[in-house]
Amino acid sequence: MNEEELAGFLAREFPQVAESYIIEELAENKIRMRLIVAEQHLRPGGTVSGPSIFALADVAVYLAILAMIGPQALAVTTSCSMDFMRKPAAGTDMIAECRLLKLGKVLAVGEVLIFSEGVEAPVARASMTYSIPPVKK
Amino acid sequence: MNEEELAGFLAREFPQVAESYIIEELAENKIRMRLIVAEQHLRPGGTVSGPSIFALADVAVYLAILAMIGPQALAVTTSCSMDFMRKPAAGTDMIAECRLLKLGKVLAVGEVLIFSEGVEAPVARASMTYSIPPVKK
Amino acid sequence: MNEEELAGFLAREFPQVAESYIIEELAENKIRMRLIVAEQHLRPGGTVSGPSIFALADVAVYLAILAMIGPQALAVTTSCSMDFMRKPAAGTDMIAECRLLKLGKVLAVGEVLIFSEGVEAPVARASMTYSIPPVKK
Amino acid sequence: MNEEELAGFLAREFPQVAESYIIEELAENKIRMRLIVAEQHLRPGGTVSGPSIFALADVAVYLAILAMIGPQALAVTTSCSMDFMRKPAAGTDMIAECRLLKLGKVLAVGEVLIFSEGVEAPVARASMTYSIPPVKK
Repeated sequence: MNEEELAGFLAREFPQVAESYIIEELAENKIRMRLIVAEQHLRPGGTVSGPSIFALADVAVYLAILAMIGPQALAVTTSCSMDFMRKPAAGTDMIAECRLLKLGKVLAVGEVLIFSEGVEAPVARASMTYSIPPVKK
Repeated sequence: MNEEELAGFLAREFPQVAESYIIEELAENKIRMRLIVAEQHLRPGGTVSGPSIFALADVAVYLAILAMIGPQALAVTTSCSMDFMRKPAAGTDMIAECRLLKLGKVLAVGEVLIFSEGVEAPVARASMTYSIPPVKK
Repeated sequence: MNEEELAGFLAREFPQVAESYIIEELAENKIRMRLIVAEQHLRPGGTVSGPSIFALADVAVYLAILAMIGPQALAVTTSCSMDFMRKPAAGTDMIAECRLLKLGKVLAVGEVLIFSEGVEAPVARASMTYSIPPVKK
Repeated sequence: MNEEELAGFLAREFPQVAESYIIEELAENKIRMRLIVAEQHLRPGGTVSGPSIFALADVAVYLAILAMIGPQALAVTTSCSMDFMRKPAAGTDMIAECRLLKLGKVLAVGEVLIFSEGVEAPVARASMTYSIPPVKK
């Protein structure tokens, strides 16, 4: 799927959250996504919440996989690990740089670095494993 | 802090999310928490979203730590790992059973099993590390 | 497989390492294993090395799975997370308490607490995911 | 510390394992290391064992940190996550490409990609957190 098809898929399948995300760039096994930071993503003090960062990493790996294999809404996260390394900058969108390290028949693994826009040092890193449902014949 | 103090702290510091959580039981190094599942936690099909499960695990470890060391709003998650093992039951609250494995001066580690209420097999497991800010003198 | 069959399998398939491990107890979805700590497991200062602790956790989950599904030498670790929480006691065997949280057709997940024998506070925790090869017909 | 000082430190502090590793390249916040694969690293079938891959990732992050902060033998791994994605090539050295994502006063985080030499697709990825002991005055 290309950027437009991915965005359409996201809006159709996940209408509650789709408007928070923008696909900034798509390439083979890679995606860069933006979280448009709004009130609902913030903790007191203006920092972006952990669950919002998790969700951004998760959607980035999901879409990177779908871009390669097509609209499989049933791919599911089976495991993740994250390190939260720095406080996000206040009032700033977040950017996820995702790369697929493996795209197998059963499992896919992606790694993600997450930044406050315009800040060089990453806020967090994540790795996510997705289970890919078998193709029905 | 006891259950009432923890609930008060949560309501005061995290008013956006506090009403979704109930402390079910508190003991030394242990906490059981409920996520009152509502529309905002769901994905299409009625399943509880990954970020909602992450948030439940995160708040359970956070409150288990605060119960032991007092109201340190500045304790922050530094790393987490999660395994998502089964689909949550639709329309059912989620229960987190959390245990602190380490409560050091600098780092605390908690592990969490997450269930759909009334279902024996766990939906997910999580381990979370928190960094505890040094006490100001 | 029972304890004897598991020990025989380990000795046959992994002769280099089998003599370091003892199955202490086996139950449904559970295993307790001992690492007989010897020179090759130590770091300077007498502490058990990280790779030795990783190996103990890994073999515990592996054998817990095989006890349930039979001798599948081809089950492989696909992911792990570990927290190292305390220094192992010097000159003391290590004990792994493993529980399977999921035993699916494709993936199995086990969690492990690792102790220095006779010490209550755990040295480390681990979670391991294994991929189970499809049954050949 | 430069490459020579790091190699000397490794030989002095970890004589049992030092001869298995070569520092291939060192730069700011980066290191590339080689595991000289020998009998003791192999599993039946000629594949490199999980603990050997863990050990390689661990030593790479450790030396990347020491290169930046000096010979702190007491830095310890506090957590790790790994994904094992492909079978290592038989009879081939392994290469770890490590990058430090954070080097704080208390915690350092490194990520590592691990390859069979000459093969483009990674065998494994790891992230490791080290706790850095406070400087004694």
